[in-house]
Amino acid sequence: MPHKILIIGGVAAGPKTACRLMRLMPDAEITIIDQDNLISYGGCGIPYYVSGDVSDEKELRNTSFHMTRDEFFFLNAKGVTVKTRTQALSINRQNKTVLIENLDTHIQEILPYDKLVLATGASPIVLPIPGADLEGVYTVSDLHKAIAIKEQLAKGKVGKAVVIGGGAIGIEMAEAFADLWGVTTTLIEFMPGLLPNILDSAFSSMLASSLRRNGVHVITGEGARAIEADEHGVACRVITPNHTLETDLVIMAAGVHPRSKLALEAGLLVAPRGGIVVNNRLQTSDPDIFAAGDCIETTHLVSGLKAHAPLGSLANRQGRLVADNIAGLSTSFEGWGGSFIMKAFDICVGATGLRYQAALDAGFEADVVITAQSDRAHFFPEQAVIPLQMIFDRKSRKILGLQGFGPMGDGILARINAAAALIATGATIDDCSKLDLAYAPPFATALDALNATANVADNKASGRLQTVSIEEYLAWMDDFSSHPDWIALDIRHPAETAGFTKKFENTWLAIPYAEIRHRHGEIPKDKTLIIICDAGTRSYEIQVFLTHLNLRSLVLGGGFNCIRRIGADWWPQ
Amino acid sequence: MPHKILIIGGVAAGPKTACRLMRLMPDAEITIIDQDNLISYGGCGIPYYVSGDVSDEKELRNTSFHMTRDEFFFLNAKGVTVKTRTQALSINRQNKTVLIENLDTHIQEILPYDKLVLATGASPIVLPIPGADLEGVYTVSDLHKAIAIKEQLAKGKVGKAVVIGGGAIGIEMAEAFADLWGVTTTLIEFMPGLLPNILDSAFSSMLASSLRRNGVHVITGEGARAIEADEHGVACRVITPNHTLETDLVIMAAGVHPRSKLALEAGLLVAPRGGIVVNNRLQTSDPDIFAAGDCIETTHLVSGLKAHAPLGSLANRQGRLVADNIAGLSTSFEGWGGSFIMKAFDICVGATGLRYQAALDAGFEADVVITAQSDRAHFFPEQAVIPLQMIFDRKSRKILGLQGFGPMGDGILARINAAAALIATGATIDDCSKLDLAYAPPFATALDALNATANVADNKASGRLQTVSIEEYLAWMDDFSSHPDWIALDIRHPAETAGFTKKFENTWLAIPYAEIRHRHGEIPKDKTLIIICDAGTRSYEIQVFLTHLNLRSLVLGGGFNCIRRIGADWWPQ
Repeated sequence: MPHKILIIGGVAAGPKTACRLMRLMPDAEITIIDQDNLISYGGCGIPYYVSGDVSDEKELRNTSFHMTRDEFFFLNAKGVTVKTRTQALSINRQNKTVLIENLDTHIQEILPYDKLVLATGASPIVLPIPGADLEGVYTVSDLHKAIAIKEQLAKGKVGKAVVIGGGAIGIEMAEAFADLWGVTTTLIEFMPGLLPNILDSAFSSMLASSLRRNGVHVITGEGARAIEADEHGVACRVITPNHTLETDLVIMAAGVHPRSKLALEAGLLVAPRGGIVVNNRLQTSDPDIFAAGDCIETTHLVSGLKAHAPLGSLANRQGRLVADNIAGLSTSFEGWGGSFIMKAFDICVGATGLRYQAALDAGFEADVVITAQSDRAHFFPEQAVIPLQMIFDRKSRKILGLQGFGPMGDGILARINAAAALIATGATIDDCSKLDLAYAPPFATALDALNATANVADNKASGRLQTVSIEEYLAWMDDFSSHPDWIALDIRHPAETAGFTKKFENTWLAIPYAEIRHRHGEIPKDKTLIIICDAGTRSYEIQVFLTHLNLRSLVLGGGFNCIRRIGADWWPQ
Repeated sequence: MPHKILIIGGVAAGPKTACRLMRLMPDAEITIIDQDNLISYGGCGIPYYVSGDVSDEKELRNTSFHMTRDEFFFLNAKGVTVKTRTQALSINRQNKTVLIENLDTHIQEILPYDKLVLATGASPIVLPIPGADLEGVYTVSDLHKAIAIKEQLAKGKVGKAVVIGGGAIGIEMAEAFADLWGVTTTLIEFMPGLLPNILDSAFSSMLASSLRRNGVHVITGEGARAIEADEHGVACRVITPNHTLETDLVIMAAGVHPRSKLALEAGLLVAPRGGIVVNNRLQTSDPDIFAAGDCIETTHLVSGLKAHAPLGSLANRQGRLVADNIAGLSTSFEGWGGSFIMKAFDICVGATGLRYQAALDAGFEADVVITAQSDRAHFFPEQAVIPLQMIFDRKSRKILGLQGFGPMGDGILARINAAAALIATGATIDDCSKLDLAYAPPFATALDALNATANVADNKASGRLQTVSIEEYLAWMDDFSSHPDWIALDIRHPAETAGFTKKFENTWLAIPYAEIRHRHGEIPKDKTLIIICDAGTRSYEIQVFLTHLNLRSLVLGGGFNCIRRIGADWWPQ
């Protein structure tokens, strides 16, 4: 049994490894070193600390039973030695030692190890643009930065802010600024949509629209070109190709990069994008050195491709697993499932598995459906419609991914987590269709929205349902001449369709759903009908009927419920 | 292809079969018959209609797009003929016809079928006790009964009510009475705990305690012996072995029985408990007759045992499946997963798979752990502790069941649904431990409560964790002499333990968690230590340390958090 365990990094994966190890090997001598004086904190809570939801940074470092996780706590409660303000300078793999230095006293020391764990985390990416190093430009990398940002806000000096980066941290920071502090906030994302690695465009657009409704100025498809300073040398302006944004503070949330310099210098294998290479027992290329958390490269469970997934949830899971493997309980980490959830003001967006484009890129015969079902019985007062998008493989019928959008609460989480479990076990859309999800009117519909989405995927995979994507539909609405043979068949209630038939005349045919069986003679036979309802469900029913009459049609999946969430300038007033 | 499809029963499984079939076989001639004039309603919504959450019974019969699902809707929108107020008198399997009678005109008719679907539902059990047929005694079986009950409430004539039956419907009705109408309500359950087929005793007790806190008088372990009438012949008193309960209204919610008389008389196989026997394509013993919904016997996915599972969610899933099989898309229904969720005032309780006792009865090497983790980051303001209980097989390490208890919302649903998906795919506690559940502080802890529960199950299955069950612990607290060698080791904060050490003196040793490594010399070596904290997590850590010192201990899983929810008369004031 190894005895001396040295862990470099004391935020998430490191402490988790240490605590689990101490429970598996009570005799072990475990030391954690960290450059910071603050350790073992909930880094994901930083936006909530900045917003004021969490009043004191100490809460991010406390246990659930109100003790502060500092070096004294680790020593007394856990029997783990922590050396803070201590940097690891180099690893001597032959002698199995690490050279460390105290950052205050500059005293160096050589620590021996039987097993070494690298939990060095990730560092924020600072974009290579002019002004990135100005005063007033903050990354969201550690508690000290968080405290500094909150101090600026609390002083009342921030009237305007620009957040560079439309990933989760950028969006959470934008919400913190706009919602709690009333700061005029602009969010910039270089890619065409927010959360570009997580959401497909319809869900990105719903999210952006919701942020705008809550007062955030969202700019997508444009990167920051420069940050300019005022006369005191403080950042005061962000320049993009089409905007000049005055600001009192800049948040740079452009992603993170694995901290793997130490590993690289020790001759360990490091992936081209910087993640430490590990096997599925989380061993590096040196079997006595493990690595976990934001510093490693991991495998996406669905695509099988290597990826960097810097998430607190994975860091904790991996920390436990490293401890198991050091203690001789051989355990494997198969990878990351792509599960994601976030709050953005009053809404929630979630995902798991692969998004559609990523599934295509990974070589799947990917297909996609979108639904707009109720999250609970439609007669239940708190009912809301929750768009869900399921990505699946046409050949194997396996579920590849799910995205969801709904009101803030745990309703989306319930569907994402169930889908995550299905995807992890290689389940098909048929398994999902039959899955016995819990039902009562205050929580779900009799056929849960997730079951219903799998049913729609089945209809699509079996060729009974033909759809037009939201993107294609919106492009056509912008330019009817792009598909001169298309015509809308709007089957909603006449009160809902009146504005459309008036505005779009020849391209808009309205026949209520319940009348089509009698009035189908009015439908032109030489057109492709774009069937529109509020969710897509009735449209599918009508499509089956029309197909039977040899009429060609496409269903707008998710219906106008999704279009309304995205917003459209052509919407009749 | 079959052409004439006859469906007996128009509430859930029947209409679902009809609508799906019409989409698969647009040429089919589909007829539904039902004895009632009201069809295709959300029967599970009845308690919410009675409570007033749903103001009009029509909402239970409406589609999500506000059309009422009556016979005209089915004809015009769906192309399905519905004959209401029509009873099926007998089936002639040789000629493939059904003799029907209109209940108003008494005109009889013979309807031919190519395929027949029995969706005859279930009828409420009326207990064989004196007074069960009195005026003022209501079952919760259909919309007419619901309307009648609500009328009584609306007239202001109900000051006191007794609900017989502590299943889901009984509890929902008790809530409707007590919460919305301020009725003094007593709930009687014959078995020792509420929801006896769904929850193990700790969770039953938490639920009962929560109902009592909300003003419902809960009596368990006692059946109703008689209902007595006032001078007008109206029910006014319910007699149990130990109680005489004055009342203005009695709800009989003692379960339901499959309606299978028609099937039985037609010579179809019917199980001893009354459910129509079907294969996994939902065909009865006559391959031209299918059955679905509350009238069939189904298989429990985990135990493999036959069961009657009258649930709207299953009825809908089965209806779709019957349609698939009639239309030639061979699809199988493997069974029911035991998933359950319910609201009770401000709390939510859920379950999936098998409860512990049922798992033992089914022959598993079942074991169980209980946790009390946070539903979201412990620093997040809306955080709450959600007790979870996981049942697993020691040999195969497969998950057999999960129970959860928490504040009203979808947090429990998220864990139940994920567990349901895992159980359906035969996953182990290790799969659950590694499952990539979505994480952000407003939704979960970095290691989700479900992951953490699987980790605790792993510790138990691997022999590192030894527990005392809540039942054993409570029995010991009632009589210390039952285990004279036990002593409590309370590792909570001194402010929390003071009342206990004072009250229980020699059986209560308090050493704070963070001090045990230094103070373990104070622990007697000849006792079994019952380690107590607020969740069980710290207790486990201390157990590992004590085991290492050759001290014998047992952890109270879920800790005092669960005990507080159950309530204890010995709790120091």
